[in-house]
Amino acid sequence: MTSGQAAVPAPVRSDTDPGGPGTREPRTGDPGTGDAGTGRDAILRAARRAFTQRPYADVTIRGIAADAKVSPSLVVKHFGRKEELFNTVADFGPAAAELFDAPLPVLGRHMVVTLVRHRRTLQSDPLLRVVFSLGNRDERSLLRDRFQEQVTDALAARLTGRERTLRAELIAGHLIGLGATLGLHRSGAGADATPEHLADLYAPALQALIDGS
Amino acid sequence: MTSGQAAVPAPVRSDTDPGGPGTREPRTGDPGTGDAGTGRDAILRAARRAFTQRPYADVTIRGIAADAKVSPSLVVKHFGRKEELFNTVADFGPAAAELFDAPLPVLGRHMVVTLVRHRRTLQSDPLLRVVFSLGNRDERSLLRDRFQEQVTDALAARLTGRERTLRAELIAGHLIGLGATLGLHRSGAGADATPEHLADLYAPALQALIDGS
Repeated sequence: MTSGQAAVPAPVRSDTDPGGPGTREPRTGDPGTGDAGTGRDAILRAARRAFTQRPYADVTIRGIAADAKVSPSLVVKHFGRKEELFNTVADFGPAAAELFDAPLPVLGRHMVVTLVRHRRTLQSDPLLRVVFSLGNRDERSLLRDRFQEQVTDALAARLTGRERTLRAELIAGHLIGLGATLGLHRSGAGADATPEHLADLYAPALQALIDGS
Repeated sequence: MTSGQAAVPAPVRSDTDPGGPGTREPRTGDPGTGDAGTGRDAILRAARRAFTQRPYADVTIRGIAADAKVSPSLVVKHFGRKEELFNTVADFGPAAAELFDAPLPVLGRHMVVTLVRHRRTLQSDPLLRVVFSLGNRDERSLLRDRFQEQVTDALAARLTGRERTLRAELIAGHLIGLGATLGLHRSGAGADATPEHLADLYAPALQALIDGS
């Protein structure tokens, strides 16, 4: 789970765990470092599972600690109280900053290449975990709210022209769908394609919505 | 959960439950009929949760019955043994038949309009539940295998030209992503848009991959 740097197609466990490695910080390099037996990674994985799959009110530090097989006090020592831990887990900001870091005329291609490279390098998808919040039967989800603020609204704010919010929602859909299909077809044609070739085929859809043409 | 025929934006529970109504049969009309206190719908919901979120080998009729709050014998009475119940739950065939039921030159638009109408009429997404199988930590997932056979491979078989499998995987991604973003942005701009307008914006991406141009 912590080999981190493989530049090959996503391994079997890439999306199997909403709390998998790499989802915390897109730029940390090896997602396995920093644990060294402290339980930090296990806590993060357990916290991601809890916050994506259950209503916020139902999540407890005690439950996360039990899932991670550590003491509740260790969770608090590493991450602070529940609200702070949620903010760590739910942060799509670094992923959004990375995905949107290109001028508008070439943003579609940049997003596809960046998402695919992120998946292959960090063995995890930068956005896909938000979909697991749909398995949460609660009416509202703070994780969805955070996604909307940090991804959809941030993207809409960069667009120009008509129907910016709708276009941003659909661009977010294209990005989530790309991660989903690469996760679903692990030994499929997409797994063997280069990020650049995937962008050739997939990015025009995003660019058309970015351009608003 | 069983109002079924609303032609308005998907209600709050649309995607919140991988076992939600309407996923079983795209053409049944009111997904609430046929239950009438027999526990049939509760069993189907429990079975969808079990088969999407856990390895096949770990799923038991007894566990599904407990989740549905009925007896194991009632599960068997309605759906047969585990393999038959899985085949009912995992069947993407009717959804694929509906989504792909158009000539290639207009298939992109047909898929988008059909998916959005299906979501709004049956209050459930025809494909999205396969994504929940990514939360299953098993190496293989029979649900993913079924999706690949019935959706991706079936679509690839209809395409012509180069890289049919890769194009089919990416089209599947676009479709899953559309359902995901509509589920995530429940009161967003997409919720207010007509199926036809969503197709105007979203279908060109699918059509380009269908055409292979």
